[in-house]
Amino acid sequence: MKIQGRNSVNEALKSDSITVNTLICEKGTSDSITALARQKGVKITFVDRAVLDKMSDDGKHQGYIADVTDFEYCDVEDILASEQPFVVVLDGLNDPHNFGSIIRACECAGADGIIIGKNRQVAVTDTVVRTSAGAASHVRIARVTNINNAIKQLREAGVWVYALDMDGQEITSVDLRGAVALVVGSEGEGISPYTKKLCDGVVSLKLKGKVNSLNASVACGIALYEVVRQRG
Amino acid sequence: MKIQGRNSVNEALKSDSITVNTLICEKGTSDSITALARQKGVKITFVDRAVLDKMSDDGKHQGYIADVTDFEYCDVEDILASEQPFVVVLDGLNDPHNFGSIIRACECAGADGIIIGKNRQVAVTDTVVRTSAGAASHVRIARVTNINNAIKQLREAGVWVYALDMDGQEITSVDLRGAVALVVGSEGEGISPYTKKLCDGVVSLKLKGKVNSLNASVACGIALYEVVRQRG
Repeated sequence: MKIQGRNSVNEALKSDSITVNTLICEKGTSDSITALARQKGVKITFVDRAVLDKMSDDGKHQGYIADVTDFEYCDVEDILASEQPFVVVLDGLNDPHNFGSIIRACECAGADGIIIGKNRQVAVTDTVVRTSAGAASHVRIARVTNINNAIKQLREAGVWVYALDMDGQEITSVDLRGAVALVVGSEGEGISPYTKKLCDGVVSLKLKGKVNSLNASVACGIALYEVVRQRG
Repeated sequence: MKIQGRNSVNEALKSDSITVNTLICEKGTSDSITALARQKGVKITFVDRAVLDKMSDDGKHQGYIADVTDFEYCDVEDILASEQPFVVVLDGLNDPHNFGSIIRACECAGADGIIIGKNRQVAVTDTVVRTSAGAASHVRIARVTNINNAIKQLREAGVWVYALDMDGQEITSVDLRGAVALVVGSEGEGISPYTKKLCDGVVSLKLKGKVNSLNASVACGIALYEVVRQRG
């Protein structure tokens, strides 16, 4: 796949989960990004700006496009290797922008990884990588056939799994300091009933308005930072 | 302007800040939305689905389009009328999706209102209303010529004004229980230096990763819910 933009390309060059095959940048560019590419042994192709414009879907390349290997997913075991795993499980998120924002939030909150399913769930595409502002290069993501089995696996490994939904205990009153996973549902339909039943509990954000629904990535970010706050 | 989609149209019909002139829906529709429109004395026009498809930019009308008056902004004084004002000030946000998500988060967190500037700032457009999932109909928004003057006005009214930025005190260690305003900067450039100087202080979210930047609406949501948590 191709990723573009100064930040995303820079983070991809530093990443373990994405390998840059070729860096394509504007003729005459000589900066920290080309230096990093050279240091990593990445082939650099210099082209006219018009060529970059043509290669880019939306022209937002900022002078840099990288041809990269597809995102390398990890295994659930890799995420569980942490001493006190802090995990996000996504149940059928289909908006790539929300997924990118969640990856960004996970990276900032220091989460150990994200688990996604193969069905009804957007994969780590170039849009997702771009929206993550480079964070996708630094967050472990496991893609599993069945997230319900992954939730069972987490619980067997001693992780407390909480569904983030409207009808639970207020999140600030739940002890989230140990090994913990948060399950976040899709924008439209929330968490599927069977998946919710598999969880140890349901945690909720206090909703004070009339509309009472938060964007999935905002809700996930708030919950992640409640874990950060409690872990101190 | 036109807004579309079941939720957004429904919330607009219930709103004080948006007036629906005409509800356009698919022939044969008879449900809670048409009933609410009738009760409010709103003119209803029934059309073929193809007409709705033609009227909609992206086809996401779900059978409902409303022709509404432009968003009615309030004054800063209206927002300050609350006993313990809880305010968000946006400094030059230009992504309508982020703005919509922030409106949604403010509504859920029970904030009293949002203050935006007239320059370098996306207004409350139909995209913003749609992204807010109807919340724009229930949140007071003041649009001022100069947000710096608005910040001075807030401080004079006894509101503690905090910039949300990277170089401040950790937000969980700051007392946010009184009258409080959070200033959120633009995606690209953050808060302008002069605006930041006008604030009583700077509050930050703990960042544990390598990329260290959160989406503006996610960061705002996390900060809003820290206020909610502290206010208990």
